Amino acid sequence: MASTETDILVDADKLHTLGVCALESVGVPSEHARMTADVLLASDLRGVESHGFAHLADFYVGRIRDGRVNARPDVRVIAESPATVTIDADRALGFVPGQIAMSKAIVKAKSVGVGMAAVRNSTHFGPGFFYAMMALPHEMIGWAFTTGGNIVIPPGGARRTYGSNVIAFAAPRREGWPFVLDMATSVVAGGKFEIAHRRGATVPEGWGLDPDGQPITDPEIYLRGGGILPLGGIPLFGAWKGFGLAVMTDVLCGVLSGNGASATVQRGASHFFAAMRIDAFEPLNEFYDRMEEMIEKLRAAMRLPGQEPLTFAGEQEWALAKERREKGIPHHPAVIKALEEMCRACGIEYDL
Amino acid sequence: MASTETDILVDADKLHTLGVCALESVGVPSEHARMTADVLLASDLRGVESHGFAHLADFYVGRIRDGRVNARPDVRVIAESPATVTIDADRALGFVPGQIAMSKAIVKAKSVGVGMAAVRNSTHFGPGFFYAMMALPHEMIGWAFTTGGNIVIPPGGARRTYGSNVIAFAAPRREGWPFVLDMATSVVAGGKFEIAHRRGATVPEGWGLDPDGQPITDPEIYLRGGGILPLGGIPLFGAWKGFGLAVMTDVLCGVLSGNGASATVQRGASHFFAAMRIDAFEPLNEFYDRMEEMIEKLRAAMRLPGQEPLTFAGEQEWALAKERREKGIPHHPAVIKALEEMCRACGIEYDL
Repeated sequence: MASTETDILVDADKLHTLGVCALESVGVPSEHARMTADVLLASDLRGVESHGFAHLADFYVGRIRDGRVNARPDVRVIAESPATVTIDADRALGFVPGQIAMSKAIVKAKSVGVGMAAVRNSTHFGPGFFYAMMALPHEMIGWAFTTGGNIVIPPGGARRTYGSNVIAFAAPRREGWPFVLDMATSVVAGGKFEIAHRRGATVPEGWGLDPDGQPITDPEIYLRGGGILPLGGIPLFGAWKGFGLAVMTDVLCGVLSGNGASATVQRGASHFFAAMRIDAFEPLNEFYDRMEEMIEKLRAAMRLPGQEPLTFAGEQEWALAKERREKGIPHHPAVIKALEEMCRACGIEYDL
Repeated sequence: MASTETDILVDADKLHTLGVCALESVGVPSEHARMTADVLLASDLRGVESHGFAHLADFYVGRIRDGRVNARPDVRVIAESPATVTIDADRALGFVPGQIAMSKAIVKAKSVGVGMAAVRNSTHFGPGFFYAMMALPHEMIGWAFTTGGNIVIPPGGARRTYGSNVIAFAAPRREGWPFVLDMATSVVAGGKFEIAHRRGATVPEGWGLDPDGQPITDPEIYLRGGGILPLGGIPLFGAWKGFGLAVMTDVLCGVLSGNGASATVQRGASHFFAAMRIDAFEPLNEFYDRMEEMIEKLRAAMRLPGQEPLTFAGEQEWALAKERREKGIPHHPAVIKALEEMCRACGIEYDL
């Protein structure tokens, strides 16, 4: 996450503008282009480079060009009740149905206390935190789940079989960083292997297996078709829990939306969202008081020598986003070069 | 979970009757006694001995006698919206507000598609699976969360600080075993240390630490005040995810109910429940078809040599419950003796 001396600092707003222009140039409607750039920018601001502008050129613009993603989708509601909605995404860029679905969940939560949305026939929606966090300005708790690429190995297996299914959860605080969990249900997300590979580093034994079931430390073996273990790693340390959380996510996203679970589909993604209005359960002030008490009490627990103070999911990301908003977002020169080339190919002005 | 030659087989219905009588004899209303015995029996049937009749005498009857649990509680609704309810359990046996709350969530889900219930001021409710599974006969998905005893160590710490917070999730199938995940957000539940201790066995390094932060293999050190690591164990293998899931559970149960998160309270428990009507999202037949496809596809994935076929959360428990319902529930002679003594002390007939 740290910037290095070779990284180039880029202004957040300029990056956003460039993203919108590039997406519009390949046929994405302006509103959808803005929604996409919003998520990519939030990822870069919070240090989730694997879901940021580094992949705009090859991944998102590329997939639209080759038709794997539908640039002009008809995102439509196919079932609805006072607290629920099911949406068909028509192979849209996942950012778009993701935001539409979570917005609908929030509207329903305003009305009846809770709103849920299941989305089928979608594609990669980037990081889960973005959608869970959409609940926060409404003084709601947000949940976002998604299926991911089929890179995870079931306990006792050796082959990548099901998705790196993600659970994201956001709860507001009275002020400062909100609690924002955003986790793959595998030991690590696939991006960690990619980062190690780029750096020429090894990965710890216990993250993944080769297709014969042997533990790997060379990230290239993963990239050539190895798989990642479920959270917990081996059964003795909780692999069945990681696998269970992944199946739970598949039931919510893949089964309940009608999409089909991750293991049963080759491409695309399905999602699930929930928004819960806090003041339907208790007065807001009580919620915020209890949040602070929890954080203080956990923070006060004894630390081992040499350990930093305890941090919470979303805390460091919040600080990083503030810093990057002010000072700029560091990107590797290769990313900047790819964005420059993308601009040329799209026939738009490059201005970073 | 396996019965040994020294275990005594007990009839399920007789065990249930004995439980109801014993609880009534210490002042628990009949309806609450039945609700409690239902959960204890379901635990024993599914092989979750740590939450079954083995603890009736010392734990439940004992806690009522010493006043730590309120035998005649006023379980009341303190906030309500079309999709949500908040309940104060008045220090009841957790089984009672647990079932009341989940029943209310189910009624709300029937009406608006989703129902959620947060419960404060409760006590141990046994295993989460029971409440999540209450959704199944209604063709709903069920979720149950609870705070637990403060036995888990935050990443970078050494002292038991927060609860072994539990996530349970149940989804129906057209027939046969339903998918039922029921997991503590720690590497293992505290009961695993107790079982190892009873057997004179060690525990694997990586489950827990002593109060100085040293890894332990002697379960007695845990029982004397050591702590359990979060799911994931150490940060390199996902401890922050386990910690994050535990905080999520604390937000849902402890913060949203107004109870206070696990780390902030000395005793008692808080819970959170959700029920989701499947046909609000999609036709039931489609849901069941997608469930079967998921299971078949995962089951078809290559197994490592010597591995059994892949099983799913709840599958073995379902088979075990069927077997135990027919053949009886194995209990250690010491448990039988304790139940016998409890009957004498309660002045009720012993008939197992």
